[in-house]
Amino acid sequence: MRTQPVVIGIAGGSGSGKSTVLECIVEAFGPEYIAVLDHDAYYHSLDQLPPAARDQFNFDHPDSLDTPLMRQHLDALIAGQPIEKPIYNFTMHVREAATTRVEPRPVIIVEGILVLAEPLLFERMDIKLFVDIEADVRLMRRIRRDLRDRGRTIDSILDQYEKTVRPMHLEFVEPSKRLADVIIPRGGHNTVAIDLVLARIEALLRQYQIEASV
Amino acid sequence: MRTQPVVIGIAGGSGSGKSTVLECIVEAFGPEYIAVLDHDAYYHSLDQLPPAARDQFNFDHPDSLDTPLMRQHLDALIAGQPIEKPIYNFTMHVREAATTRVEPRPVIIVEGILVLAEPLLFERMDIKLFVDIEADVRLMRRIRRDLRDRGRTIDSILDQYEKTVRPMHLEFVEPSKRLADVIIPRGGHNTVAIDLVLARIEALLRQYQIEASV
Repeated sequence: MRTQPVVIGIAGGSGSGKSTVLECIVEAFGPEYIAVLDHDAYYHSLDQLPPAARDQFNFDHPDSLDTPLMRQHLDALIAGQPIEKPIYNFTMHVREAATTRVEPRPVIIVEGILVLAEPLLFERMDIKLFVDIEADVRLMRRIRRDLRDRGRTIDSILDQYEKTVRPMHLEFVEPSKRLADVIIPRGGHNTVAIDLVLARIEALLRQYQIEASV
Repeated sequence: MRTQPVVIGIAGGSGSGKSTVLECIVEAFGPEYIAVLDHDAYYHSLDQLPPAARDQFNFDHPDSLDTPLMRQHLDALIAGQPIEKPIYNFTMHVREAATTRVEPRPVIIVEGILVLAEPLLFERMDIKLFVDIEADVRLMRRIRRDLRDRGRTIDSILDQYEKTVRPMHLEFVEPSKRLADVIIPRGGHNTVAIDLVLARIEALLRQYQIEASV
């Protein structure tokens, strides 16, 4: 029987539908069962760089993220302690002074494009998911999202895609797919795959509750 | 609630570990819950061909299989009727006179390298699994199996692999992977993925039994 939380990793390229899979899990069980550590919250603050240089930064390289801090937080949650998750300001590329309190929960989800590529995170995961979708579909989604939500020009979106997103995907994200336990094709709209994941979490939560009530 | 059986497709290249996944499912629930239709049992009889020509036959092409009969059997099982599954003699490449009776069960598994590539079978499946493993690992397994179990020479194994197994894999099996709901990497030894599948079947069986007992 389980005596500690289940750690689930959700990786996949930018625009693959990771967030939709994550949302389905949180919605199915409720936030009282699920703690979420999103790698994006752990970007290094670029306050030492002049603002003009920040937009040119390679946000898709593992070194752009404070993974050791995320690992500390993951270990604290596994040990049953709450953590203060950073809040990242994606406009200024700096870490905010405020934080988000995350309470320990029976299921901890570690989400991000590089979470399977980072041994510090990988080695703590019980279930490793990789949400997979064709590269051109990911690019379409990214263009639509960045035009709509981030007010960027199509030139700057494609420029960034070509200079960092695509090469980093091929160098780090794609090779980490083979480390996954389960590959979920067609992204977040694959309800059959999501139902499999939900059924397994439900079974594990049942074990956890039996253990907790003993 | 479910009023009819769940149909699960298990595809993947030759040597990918499909049978191991299948065995894990049957072992977990017992044959009283699982009916198995393996595509291999539905090879066309080659009794019209002289024995020497039979070994040269392309056993990896969809036309080598009697898929319409398998679909009839699948529909009968879904409708709650038993079927008489053919027994194929792989030495003589003919269908035996005897058959295997398969009783209808709440879970029906449709297994074979081409089951996702065959619309007749695909369109009846509720859950589509593809067991995926690198081509060189599949080849190693196939060589070992054919040397050990089928008493063949390494020349004839590689010759068949190059002439039919490999091209048919690239033409039919690999493209069918994108139709899967879930891709299981590392084949039959991936217990984390198998546990997800088992949990989902268990949840569906619970629904089925609630329905059956109403």
